[in-house]
Amino acid sequence: MVSNTAGKVIRCKAAVAWEAGKPLVIEEVEVAPPQANEIRLKILFTSLCHTDVYFWEAKGQTPLFPRIFGHEAGGIVESVGEGVTDLKAGDHVLPVFTGECKECQHCKSEESNMCDLLRINTDRGVMLNDGKSRFSINGKPIYHFVGTSTFSEYTVVHVGCVAKINPAAPLDKVCVLSCGISTGLGATLNVAKPTKGSSVAIFGLGAVGLAAAEGAKLAGASRIIGVDLNSSRFTEAKKFGVNEFVNPKDHDKPVQEVIAAMTGGGVDRSVECTGSISAMISAFECVHDGWGVAVLVGVPNKDDAFKTHPINVLNEKTLKGTFFGNYKPRSDLPSVVEMYMNKELELEKFITHEVPFSEINKAFEYMLKGEGLRCIIRMTE
Amino acid sequence: MVSNTAGKVIRCKAAVAWEAGKPLVIEEVEVAPPQANEIRLKILFTSLCHTDVYFWEAKGQTPLFPRIFGHEAGGIVESVGEGVTDLKAGDHVLPVFTGECKECQHCKSEESNMCDLLRINTDRGVMLNDGKSRFSINGKPIYHFVGTSTFSEYTVVHVGCVAKINPAAPLDKVCVLSCGISTGLGATLNVAKPTKGSSVAIFGLGAVGLAAAEGAKLAGASRIIGVDLNSSRFTEAKKFGVNEFVNPKDHDKPVQEVIAAMTGGGVDRSVECTGSISAMISAFECVHDGWGVAVLVGVPNKDDAFKTHPINVLNEKTLKGTFFGNYKPRSDLPSVVEMYMNKELELEKFITHEVPFSEINKAFEYMLKGEGLRCIIRMTE
Repeated sequence: MVSNTAGKVIRCKAAVAWEAGKPLVIEEVEVAPPQANEIRLKILFTSLCHTDVYFWEAKGQTPLFPRIFGHEAGGIVESVGEGVTDLKAGDHVLPVFTGECKECQHCKSEESNMCDLLRINTDRGVMLNDGKSRFSINGKPIYHFVGTSTFSEYTVVHVGCVAKINPAAPLDKVCVLSCGISTGLGATLNVAKPTKGSSVAIFGLGAVGLAAAEGAKLAGASRIIGVDLNSSRFTEAKKFGVNEFVNPKDHDKPVQEVIAAMTGGGVDRSVECTGSISAMISAFECVHDGWGVAVLVGVPNKDDAFKTHPINVLNEKTLKGTFFGNYKPRSDLPSVVEMYMNKELELEKFITHEVPFSEINKAFEYMLKGEGLRCIIRMTE
Repeated sequence: MVSNTAGKVIRCKAAVAWEAGKPLVIEEVEVAPPQANEIRLKILFTSLCHTDVYFWEAKGQTPLFPRIFGHEAGGIVESVGEGVTDLKAGDHVLPVFTGECKECQHCKSEESNMCDLLRINTDRGVMLNDGKSRFSINGKPIYHFVGTSTFSEYTVVHVGCVAKINPAAPLDKVCVLSCGISTGLGATLNVAKPTKGSSVAIFGLGAVGLAAAEGAKLAGASRIIGVDLNSSRFTEAKKFGVNEFVNPKDHDKPVQEVIAAMTGGGVDRSVECTGSISAMISAFECVHDGWGVAVLVGVPNKDDAFKTHPINVLNEKTLKGTFFGNYKPRSDLPSVVEMYMNKELELEKFITHEVPFSEINKAFEYMLKGEGLRCIIRMTE
């Protein structure tokens, strides 16, 4: 299937962030054809993730505007650029904010997914190939975001940043696997690796934390202890396997001591999904000596310092971190989609809202209010 | 073989530390018979380890004197107490400063060697069974040290703190496996686990660090980078596989940056054997993102804080610690002795000095001067 738009500029709607923190504006943009090793995608569904909001608010990072945000999405290849051989028009794909070139030392390592060429770069607003944007309005470039910019009916991405998936998979569901859900799930399944019957503490019961809890449930953990400053989250969390709850605010002593007391010395595994430095330290210190493993997922602030007494390390506690749940985007995501297709993984419970593209700002409002988990944005009305 | 001393008090020579930092005095002591779950050993060879010196100097710890130090040794069972079934008089054993009860959650875990019952306790100077010492001089008790007190011709230890070894193994060589050498070797072989052809940085080229380097060599690492503040140690270190050397004093930038520049982003593994907090932080930060693993071995000071930017963790570097190289004393040490017997592991190069028991204070002098690696103390003249 070759589209009749291949090689031509496409005019379509995109939600443009003109300024930090200001509502997005649906504009008509021009999307240039893909260059070498790029593909152009028609986005069918996208969802909103905290990272979009974080860079849209641009508190603490270099602001880069005007910009098209969006990085959790599902779409169909419209056309491919020169040298692209493993994807063709019509393929169903998930764009991913980080990539897999398959050539660098990280891609060749079995342990790493931190591709040297295509690793997330939140400061870059242009394509690697020519250092330019593929988006413009009346000739004025609009910046990309993490190489995906899925808040547009069409977008251009590097071929290394898309996972080709089962065309039978419903894109309005599996689009959430582009970022947050895979991040949490992989943190537990690929990195923490709890064993059957073990105990796992999950710090932060947002979408990523709940996906981490879901991973613990899938791994057969018997005690899944949710830790959150908002006790109302526990009810929802039960659907994801969380069966005990600790609100650090309810206790006078540090939460790591509360958890140690609950579990005879500490949990077998912990997964930190808040990005708060104190939660990171608690997540490490709450694991059992001798065998405990703590996995950090949440993104810290620039000036944070992780600080602990080294005896905690010497007592055979392990500290690990993960990026995108250690999934290699192209190699591994298709199999996560298959978990959904085989009903091993439920995604519907992560999807609490849905809006048409024209109402994309509502998705931002839900997230800013902390309402729900994922809001799907339908690109085609 | 039942000794004719079984059940009786034995009078023998021991090197008693009467006061912190003062030369040991060879005294005639009385060694009571072993009680339930204890054994009495005739020590043939013992060696001096930094930990003995550290607690003998008693700077910063609770002083406990008079005390009989010593914990690296080889001996023969003289008699066994009630309930001891897996050892008998005549068995060749290595006493160990930490134990393995085989009943607790740590002993039952495949991952931990930090036995709940018999884990090292440097503050306790008495036996677990009755809270009393088995050593006395004219009825006045002399304290034990880490349950071993091998600077005595006879000593009493808990059955969980001895490894029964191949009786053909020369005790004047394998005695060094009781502590330091196994600690370093196991840190690399059991915890860091470098793969063939990988790069490993070893911080600290004392006996433990050189044993860690030896482990890296046995594992087939191709680049073994020694890091030490004393450049003269590099020559000796070559015998243990160290093939590159960095003295942090020779550089203006932090040693982790020097190592990153040497290795295209960082080493695959690092093992920290100094106990210096800045070396611990460097050892962590010098491993490669995506797959690097740092292992802490050296014992920190009480008030140290391990401090790093959490992004180092999130970039998929792993921080682990180990205690006694993750060896379970009773289950695993016999096989390390077999490595020596099969010529897979050379121990002779760790043994740089030997003195008769009467000159035990010379061993302290060598160590305080930083001269050599291990000094063997012959108990029988």
